[in-house]
Amino acid sequence: MPNSTDTPSNDTPSNDTGSFNPTARSRVKRLHERGKYDEASVFAILDAAFIAHIGYVIDGQPFVTPTAYWRQGQTLYWHGSAASRMLRFQEAGVPACVTVTHLDGLVMARSGFHHSINYRSVMAFGMAKLVADPQEEAAQLDLFVDRLYPGRRATLRPNEPQELKGTTVIAMEIEEASAKTRSGHPKDDEADYALDCWAGVIPIHQVVGRPIADPLLKAGVAFPKGLAGYRDGARFDELLTTNMV
Amino acid sequence: MPNSTDTPSNDTPSNDTGSFNPTARSRVKRLHERGKYDEASVFAILDAAFIAHIGYVIDGQPFVTPTAYWRQGQTLYWHGSAASRMLRFQEAGVPACVTVTHLDGLVMARSGFHHSINYRSVMAFGMAKLVADPQEEAAQLDLFVDRLYPGRRATLRPNEPQELKGTTVIAMEIEEASAKTRSGHPKDDEADYALDCWAGVIPIHQVVGRPIADPLLKAGVAFPKGLAGYRDGARFDELLTTNMV
Repeated sequence: MPNSTDTPSNDTPSNDTGSFNPTARSRVKRLHERGKYDEASVFAILDAAFIAHIGYVIDGQPFVTPTAYWRQGQTLYWHGSAASRMLRFQEAGVPACVTVTHLDGLVMARSGFHHSINYRSVMAFGMAKLVADPQEEAAQLDLFVDRLYPGRRATLRPNEPQELKGTTVIAMEIEEASAKTRSGHPKDDEADYALDCWAGVIPIHQVVGRPIADPLLKAGVAFPKGLAGYRDGARFDELLTTNMV
Repeated sequence: MPNSTDTPSNDTPSNDTGSFNPTARSRVKRLHERGKYDEASVFAILDAAFIAHIGYVIDGQPFVTPTAYWRQGQTLYWHGSAASRMLRFQEAGVPACVTVTHLDGLVMARSGFHHSINYRSVMAFGMAKLVADPQEEAAQLDLFVDRLYPGRRATLRPNEPQELKGTTVIAMEIEEASAKTRSGHPKDDEADYALDCWAGVIPIHQVVGRPIADPLLKAGVAFPKGLAGYRDGARFDELLTTNMV
C-alpha cells in the first residue's frame, strides 16, 4: 500500500480476524486510545451515515466532494451523473479517502483547553474505480434505493436504459480504514473540578422531520407503509442502521 | 491559482462585488444553476456549520480529516494538538480543500433516477498554514470558544502557557469557493406524475438535545444563561448562525 512505513504490503484488505491492518496511512496517532480498526467498529459507523466526504487529488490539488454512499461487504459505492467531473476522473482508478463523520455532542469543560467534541468517524482508503458492468451498476443502484427506502425499488417503474447510461457508479474496496470516536463527559485537570464553571455535554443528533408530500402528488397516494420509521424526530443514524438489516 | 485554466491568476481572493472568482477548480460544472460564488452565499453556509472535512495530500495520497472550524473574514481556521499529524503537515503551507455540508432532506421522486438530496455545501480552496504569532493564536482560540458558546471565554480560567504551546491553529485564506445547494420537491419526468407513487421530501436537521451536566459538576453551578438557545430540539445550524452575530 502507498505510504506504508510500518507494515509490509498486504493484498487482502482485512486479516482473518475481521480487522483492517493499519499502516502509517490509517493509524490513529493522536489519542490513539480513540482509534479502532476492526470491521465491526468501522462498518457500524459507515452504515449509520448517508453522506461521505470523498477526497481525491487532481494535479496535486486536493478536492473533497460530499456525496451519498452505500456499502456492500468491504466495498463502498457512490454514484452520480456520467458528466460529473469527480466521477469521470475517478473512473480510471485513483487513490481516494472516504471520510464519514457523526457529530454526537459538544463537550463543555472547565477550561478552554479541555473543551471537546463527541463524534464517531471513519477514514477509509482505497482505489476508486468505475463499476463497468451495466448489470452490476443497475444492481448497486437498486441496493442504494432500498438502503434508504426499504422495499421502494420494487414499487418504482423500471430504470430507462438512458438513465442507467447517464449514471456512473464508483466502487472503492476498502484497503485500510480506521474508526475514531469520543464519547462521554469532559476530562478536566484535577484542580479545575473545584471551579464554579458549568461542565457537561450538549448532545447533537441528526433527525428526520415529517415527510412533506409534493404538491403535485397524485390524489390518494399515501406515504409508503414500509417507511413508517421516517417519523418526526426519529434519529437518522438509527433509521439507517435499521434499514441496513 | 493552481489548476486554473479558465481565468488568469488573481491575487485577491474576491473581486470588488464580494464574489469569489471561480476557475476550473471551483466552478460548479454539473447542474451549474445550483452553484453560487458570492460571499454572502458561501459565508451563510459556512457560518451555519461546525464540522468541516479538510482535504490535503501527502505523497500523492489524499486525506480527509473532519474537524471543527471557524471563520473570520475570508479566512477559515481550525486547530488541534501540536502533535497532530495533519496539523504538523499543514504548518508549512499546503494546498487544502475545506468542504462543509448540510444535509437538509431526502427527495423521493417517482423514478429511481430522479431521487435526490436537498443540501447546502461549500468547497473552499486555499493554502493552509500555521498561525505562528502566539497572540493571534490565543485570540483565534478565544473566538472559537465564543462562537460556539457566546460569552463563555470570559467565564473560563486563563489558558496556561503550556496549553497554548500544545495547541496549533491553522489558517486558510479562501482563494476560491463555490456554494452548491438543492432545495424543494422532486423534478420528475412529465409522464411519471401520473404514477401511483409517493413523492415529496423528508426533511433532515441537526438538532441539539437537553444539556447533560457532568456528574462531577460542582453543586449549585447552573447552565450558563447566555446559552439558553441550546434547548432540546433547537436546530444547530440556526443556533450557530445566531451565535455568529
